[in-house]
Amino acid sequence: MKQVRVGLIGTGYMGKAHAIAFKTAGAIFPLSGELLCEMVAELDPQLAERKAKEFGFQRSTGNWQELVNDPKIDVVDICAPNHLHKEMALAAIAAGKHVYSEKPLALNAKDALEMTLAAEAAGVKTLVGFNYVKNPTVQLAKEIISNGEIGEVVHFRGTFNEDYLADANSEFTWRLKREFSGSGTLGDMGSHIINMAHYLVAPIAQVCADLQTVHKQRPIAGTTEQMGEVENDDQVHMMVRFANGAIGTLESSRIAWGRKNGLWFEVTGTKGSLIYDQERLSELQLYTQNEAKNRQGFRRILTGPDHPDYAHFCVSAGHGLGYNDMKAVEVRDLIEGILTEAPLWPDFRAAYQVNQVCDAAETSYQEARWVSLSHE
Amino acid sequence: MKQVRVGLIGTGYMGKAHAIAFKTAGAIFPLSGELLCEMVAELDPQLAERKAKEFGFQRSTGNWQELVNDPKIDVVDICAPNHLHKEMALAAIAAGKHVYSEKPLALNAKDALEMTLAAEAAGVKTLVGFNYVKNPTVQLAKEIISNGEIGEVVHFRGTFNEDYLADANSEFTWRLKREFSGSGTLGDMGSHIINMAHYLVAPIAQVCADLQTVHKQRPIAGTTEQMGEVENDDQVHMMVRFANGAIGTLESSRIAWGRKNGLWFEVTGTKGSLIYDQERLSELQLYTQNEAKNRQGFRRILTGPDHPDYAHFCVSAGHGLGYNDMKAVEVRDLIEGILTEAPLWPDFRAAYQVNQVCDAAETSYQEARWVSLSHE
Amino acid sequence: MKQVRVGLIGTGYMGKAHAIAFKTAGAIFPLSGELLCEMVAELDPQLAERKAKEFGFQRSTGNWQELVNDPKIDVVDICAPNHLHKEMALAAIAAGKHVYSEKPLALNAKDALEMTLAAEAAGVKTLVGFNYVKNPTVQLAKEIISNGEIGEVVHFRGTFNEDYLADANSEFTWRLKREFSGSGTLGDMGSHIINMAHYLVAPIAQVCADLQTVHKQRPIAGTTEQMGEVENDDQVHMMVRFANGAIGTLESSRIAWGRKNGLWFEVTGTKGSLIYDQERLSELQLYTQNEAKNRQGFRRILTGPDHPDYAHFCVSAGHGLGYNDMKAVEVRDLIEGILTEAPLWPDFRAAYQVNQVCDAAETSYQEARWVSLSHE
Amino acid sequence: MKQVRVGLIGTGYMGKAHAIAFKTAGAIFPLSGELLCEMVAELDPQLAERKAKEFGFQRSTGNWQELVNDPKIDVVDICAPNHLHKEMALAAIAAGKHVYSEKPLALNAKDALEMTLAAEAAGVKTLVGFNYVKNPTVQLAKEIISNGEIGEVVHFRGTFNEDYLADANSEFTWRLKREFSGSGTLGDMGSHIINMAHYLVAPIAQVCADLQTVHKQRPIAGTTEQMGEVENDDQVHMMVRFANGAIGTLESSRIAWGRKNGLWFEVTGTKGSLIYDQERLSELQLYTQNEAKNRQGFRRILTGPDHPDYAHFCVSAGHGLGYNDMKAVEVRDLIEGILTEAPLWPDFRAAYQVNQVCDAAETSYQEARWVSLSHE
Ligand SMILES: NC(=O)C1=CN([C@@H]2O[C@H](COP(=O)(O)OP(=O)(O)OC[C@H]3O[C@@H](n4cnc5c(N)ncnc54)[C@H](O)[C@@H]3O)[C@@H](O)[C@H]2O)C=CC1
Ligand SMILES: NC(=O)C1=CN([C@@H]2O[C@H](COP(=O)(O)OP(=O)(O)OC[C@H]3O[C@@H](n4cnc5c(N)ncnc54)[C@H](O)[C@@H]3O)[C@@H](O)[C@H]2O)C=CC1
Ligand SMILES: NC(=O)C1=CN([C@@H]2O[C@H](COP(=O)(O)OP(=O)(O)OC[C@H]3O[C@@H](n4cnc5c(N)ncnc54)[C@H](O)[C@@H]3O)[C@@H](O)[C@H]2O)C=CC1
Ligand SMILES: NC(=O)C1=CN([C@@H]2O[C@H](COP(=O)(O)OP(=O)(O)OC[C@H]3O[C@@H](n4cnc5c(N)ncnc54)[C@H](O)[C@@H]3O)[C@@H](O)[C@H]2O)C=CC1
Repeated sequence: MKQVRVGLIGTGYMGKAHAIAFKTAGAIFPLSGELLCEMVAELDPQLAERKAKEFGFQRSTGNWQELVNDPKIDVVDICAPNHLHKEMALAAIAAGKHVYSEKPLALNAKDALEMTLAAEAAGVKTLVGFNYVKNPTVQLAKEIISNGEIGEVVHFRGTFNEDYLADANSEFTWRLKREFSGSGTLGDMGSHIINMAHYLVAPIAQVCADLQTVHKQRPIAGTTEQMGEVENDDQVHMMVRFANGAIGTLESSRIAWGRKNGLWFEVTGTKGSLIYDQERLSELQLYTQNEAKNRQGFRRILTGPDHPDYAHFCVSAGHGLGYNDMKAVEVRDLIEGILTEAPLWPDFRAAYQVNQVCDAAETSYQEARWVSLSHE
Repeated sequence: MKQVRVGLIGTGYMGKAHAIAFKTAGAIFPLSGELLCEMVAELDPQLAERKAKEFGFQRSTGNWQELVNDPKIDVVDICAPNHLHKEMALAAIAAGKHVYSEKPLALNAKDALEMTLAAEAAGVKTLVGFNYVKNPTVQLAKEIISNGEIGEVVHFRGTFNEDYLADANSEFTWRLKREFSGSGTLGDMGSHIINMAHYLVAPIAQVCADLQTVHKQRPIAGTTEQMGEVENDDQVHMMVRFANGAIGTLESSRIAWGRKNGLWFEVTGTKGSLIYDQERLSELQLYTQNEAKNRQGFRRILTGPDHPDYAHFCVSAGHGLGYNDMKAVEVRDLIEGILTEAPLWPDFRAAYQVNQVCDAAETSYQEARWVSLSHE
Repeated sequence: MKQVRVGLIGTGYMGKAHAIAFKTAGAIFPLSGELLCEMVAELDPQLAERKAKEFGFQRSTGNWQELVNDPKIDVVDICAPNHLHKEMALAAIAAGKHVYSEKPLALNAKDALEMTLAAEAAGVKTLVGFNYVKNPTVQLAKEIISNGEIGEVVHFRGTFNEDYLADANSEFTWRLKREFSGSGTLGDMGSHIINMAHYLVAPIAQVCADLQTVHKQRPIAGTTEQMGEVENDDQVHMMVRFANGAIGTLESSRIAWGRKNGLWFEVTGTKGSLIYDQERLSELQLYTQNEAKNRQGFRRILTGPDHPDYAHFCVSAGHGLGYNDMKAVEVRDLIEGILTEAPLWPDFRAAYQVNQVCDAAETSYQEARWVSLSHE
Repeated sequence: MKQVRVGLIGTGYMGKAHAIAFKTAGAIFPLSGELLCEMVAELDPQLAERKAKEFGFQRSTGNWQELVNDPKIDVVDICAPNHLHKEMALAAIAAGKHVYSEKPLALNAKDALEMTLAAEAAGVKTLVGFNYVKNPTVQLAKEIISNGEIGEVVHFRGTFNEDYLADANSEFTWRLKREFSGSGTLGDMGSHIINMAHYLVAPIAQVCADLQTVHKQRPIAGTTEQMGEVENDDQVHMMVRFANGAIGTLESSRIAWGRKNGLWFEVTGTKGSLIYDQERLSELQLYTQNEAKNRQGFRRILTGPDHPDYAHFCVSAGHGLGYNDMKAVEVRDLIEGILTEAPLWPDFRAAYQVNQVCDAAETSYQEARWVSLSHE
């Protein structure tokens, strides 16, 4: 049986989520090959070793270059902070490895394009962790739209709001500095909703955005009364025009009290509508004009075995999937994409297009105007 | 006991809603005077007579000028289509009557200002039918914000979407022509959400908008295959910046399948959030950071006698108010505003500010730029 | 035009609700005659006078017998406490008046039967205030069931829970004493859900119930530390078997924290299901097996002009009705039932059947057994 | 590091769910030892072999006795149909193995007691798969109740409804025959809600139940027009009285159209209430009387890292857990219960008590009376 040997860089929030998915993917899905958890890289070699054990990996290293260049690694999985994605990915590509990277792909579109071209030139396969599009419920939304069940899409409203920095006294982190994070909520969560819009509607052709840093300073952890300067946006929203003529708004906030995983979208078509709320990730609401007028209403569809991918998790409908399950689908896609001709999406190019929209939003804000995009 | 004698112009959708409220207001609220349903005006005198009977009015006329100039009328209530508001209001003001007008006040800000200045010069009282701010639930939202319970407002997302023209084959109506309606959904429903934003947050200082007519032709009723040209917007959204520094988005659509009374807002503050959905008009969702972290959540408050105005309708909480009940509150405000020193809001000036935002949105769209407003 | 002259006894909670409905019914519905608010009776003649003015009635009295025997009264409306319904209704019937009574009809089935037989013998018309069945949304549920859209009903779960006595320190009231109220929540709110089950499913043929008084004493208002003995149930639930073979459970509580108007039902049929939540009284959830399996879901139907009676309130769907609007439908039924051949339901006989179920529930509890009912 | 070697019998629905959990538990939780997937048993040795590979087990067998007696197995996991639990568990106990069994433990209380006594005598550890109590959201409910945050529990309404047999034409299965399944929905899903009630409230002391087989015949798969006789209940409900004085109702149905995982409970206390809906398994609704009266409402708490066990899955709140995640918690409990002094619940004794309630419900139905239980 074929094997795919994975090297994981970074063992924080996402590192663990990937590790769990590496374990479950094989038990859940019939895979075309075996996934082997080969090596973990971390800043601190001791941490690397401990995590390798915890996550069920064979080996560990305190030096990510070592991992990237290890001959027994087929795919490099980058779960390190944003500013490291580029260097790590380029090194992995240079070593002929496939790359599985967390989002946003890069700090800006220029870097993302460089990475994309490198990967394409090297002929390695790439996948970026925009996991929300992997949810069976979201795949169902895609299917409904593609079938024309809601007609032509005319409007898309998407938000991705959380409150993890809503408290003005939340501690300063790397995410608040340009050099490590790039933009703020725009690249962090906004990138997910941009990718979702690309997935469900069409490429975004024009952007007009507003950004705001509400809390301009945050206390630095471990210090007394020392404040760090926040360098990027707490909240952003933008008007978009899609290549297919639909229009919409996208919004993201990291200071939206009460929202915990507030990725939310409403798609309006000429024959019906869809509503999705990520906090209820196994529900899709569908309205169509097909029913008799006095029987029309939003239908709450609970995702089940008659929908994409769900049956592999559970034979009963409505039993619910969780966040980590989306990563398991993503890992299934990774393995199949590497071992077979199955398409891999969103790849670096798709993620580069997301970065383009993020950059356009910042330009739009700075220059107070609409910005056009040309997706190649 | 003091009396307020009302003359009603127009007996369609809103004419009836006002008539119902004229009946109920006195039974629900202790009023400072008696409301008398004096006269109805309609285009067709027979219709006027029939409706006067149905609605419980004393007299009727086929000529609205007659009503406006009748000495026994204290307040002229304008429920005619948008393009007639100006002429009727100016005539009523000239005759020294108070004016209760449906929204939008005028086809454009220039007209609205002329009406406002005339009313202010004449010293008559005015009220405009932005009824959704009268809902006890919305008053509660206002109270929570004013108390600082959610801190400083940093974001407002408001929509007012319906699907009454979502069917591409819906018949052509006066609302689709500039000369009768002015803008499309922008002035029709958008004006409500703009007024709501003004009520809950602050004056809107800057606007950047996008508008779209999706269905450019509609079949003309009673004809075979004759199509009318739609002259105004089916959907609109805009980014706004408020005078107090908060930012937000406003959206309106008349083609949003599934939305029946989709006035919806989410207000984010530095200490909490509010969510309101007009399709569940007796519920307010409140999130505050006061509770212990592991007990925080959006709290669904069912409006009841401990909230503004509700106790007059019912002594039990959660028994629910309806659309017509908001009009009853509006009429209570009208009567009290006329007979006492109680403030009347939204008056013509407030409605003019709404018209200003609508005009700014159209300019913004045409010129693809942010437009600043200076509210006097 | 024909007239119906109403005499109202009792001006508390329900007295006001009826008064509002008397005002609105005519403005909302085209009625077959005119409703005249003739006279109000209260214990205290001054209160009677004041309320007559407030409610827009012509005359008042401190003696309900006077009202009942007044020749200008066509229909006697009983909004006094439960224990007075019988005496007042029998007197009204004796005087040849139609009777509109609040629920529960009587303290027990024996009294209710006596009242029913008297009314039937006298040939007067009767209506009992089980207003929740008048809601257009509930009428829609009835229509769906009658059409067979959910197949044969196999199960009904109904609750009517509130929290108005959930606080152990709520003051003692007449509702807690047998002689004034009869049973507790069973007759007060339970009667509504029993009537709803009769309306939607079939007569209840067998009952097995459990009752409980959780707070056995309550502080007497205006006293210091004096406690009144609670003589009836705080919470009740029962299993029922319907005459048509369906089974179900009914529950009522006046101490259910958080429930404000918790009349809730779920009807399961062989082809679909319905869910209704009175706290969202303009929504009905419908599930049918007709759709493709992967498109099935509960459909949230917002009540609108394509549903029973709603169009009279508003031409736009989803704009929402309130508690008082249900009373307006009830009053419309009353007027039409009196002036035309339109059927009046629930009449005294229907309300007597509700009292029978209440009595059976108490017997069942006391004797710890199933009790059979024979509805004549 | 200590090891726990698992042998799995049965590779259907639950077999796979267990297998997934065996993989994930270690990646999610820090365990006191290593879980080894040792052997799979199935009826057909080929199937056993294929599944062993798929699920990541070392060995396989077509004879479960072999597995039970294998010296390298520490714990026998029974995922076979109900009627086999007893024989398999007794054999495993005899071989000195710990037993992890799916629910219901046995076809009746007598058998369950025999199994319980055997396990207790042998000193082996046991755990039964009532996974819904493992959900962090449900653990939170338990914590809130135990803390007294909603006062004394006075009422519990619990349902567990699905529609997997709602279609009258669903094929005949082993679950419909007494010898393989015991009771119908009562033991299948009812057992979950009974166990939930035991977990959250107190032992059930008295039961009065009604059962019904709605579809008395079902088509036998692969045959033409041959029908199988359904021998057990499609729907059941019961009134219960808890040992601590609270009362409640429990309901289960396998023919409730629209319900997919309709485990739902509402717990009413003297100071507040809780609502849980398994179809939204990461939400708990809490109402308490602590807030100011005009700020009270059901609070939708999204489960997060500040709640029991969740942080191991994800550091962000509200990201959602799924059905399989509950099994991961269950497996964590299993491993810790075996390797440490941590309590294991629900063990065979707890599951026996559930079987007792099921038996009492059937007796109650047959004899049309309340049945008392004495939990030892
Ligand atoms: N797809 C999604 O939903 C999410 C994606 N992310 C993305 O995942 C990436 C990582 O974020 P988190 O896991 O939240 O951050 P984290 O701070 O929890 O973890 C980052 C880890 O990378 C390690 N690291 C840093 N420099 C390293 C180096 N030079 N060599 C090896 N390891 C190094 C750190 O020690 C740390 O353990 C980010 O790009 C982020 O945007 C994060 C959260 C959710
Ligand atoms: N506050 C709110 O929620 C709503 C406000 N409106 C506003 O109410 C106004 C009226 O709209 P609808 O009632 O929906 O229209 P409608 O078309 O139902 O009724 C308008 C009525 O005015 C009468 N009318 C027209 N010209 C007249 C004249 N010269 N003299 C006397 N009567 C005349 C028409 O015959 C018709 O009966 C509009 O300005 C609209 O924007 C409408 C719906 C909702
Ligand atoms: N349909 C529904 O949803 C509801 C029905 N009800 C029913 O309405 C009836 C009245 O209840 P509420 O209005 O809540 O009570 P309430 O206590 O608010 O009002 C009762 C009124 O009757 C008056 N009254 C008492 N004795 C009288 C007498 N001998 N002559 C004249 N007036 C007398 C009292 O002074 C008081 O004003 C009850 O039967 C109750 O069950 C009450 C609430 C809701
Ligand atoms: N905790 C929960 O939520 C759930 C629990 N269950 C319980 O799990 C148990 C199994 O149910 P399902 O997995 O749904 O059934 P299933 O029919 O999907 O799987 C049962 C498996 O056991 C195998 N089997 C039968 N006899 C065997 C034998 N003598 N030796 C070895 N293997 C044998 C069958 O070949 C089949 O693969 C039942 O007791 C059921 O009540 C089922 C579903 C959900």
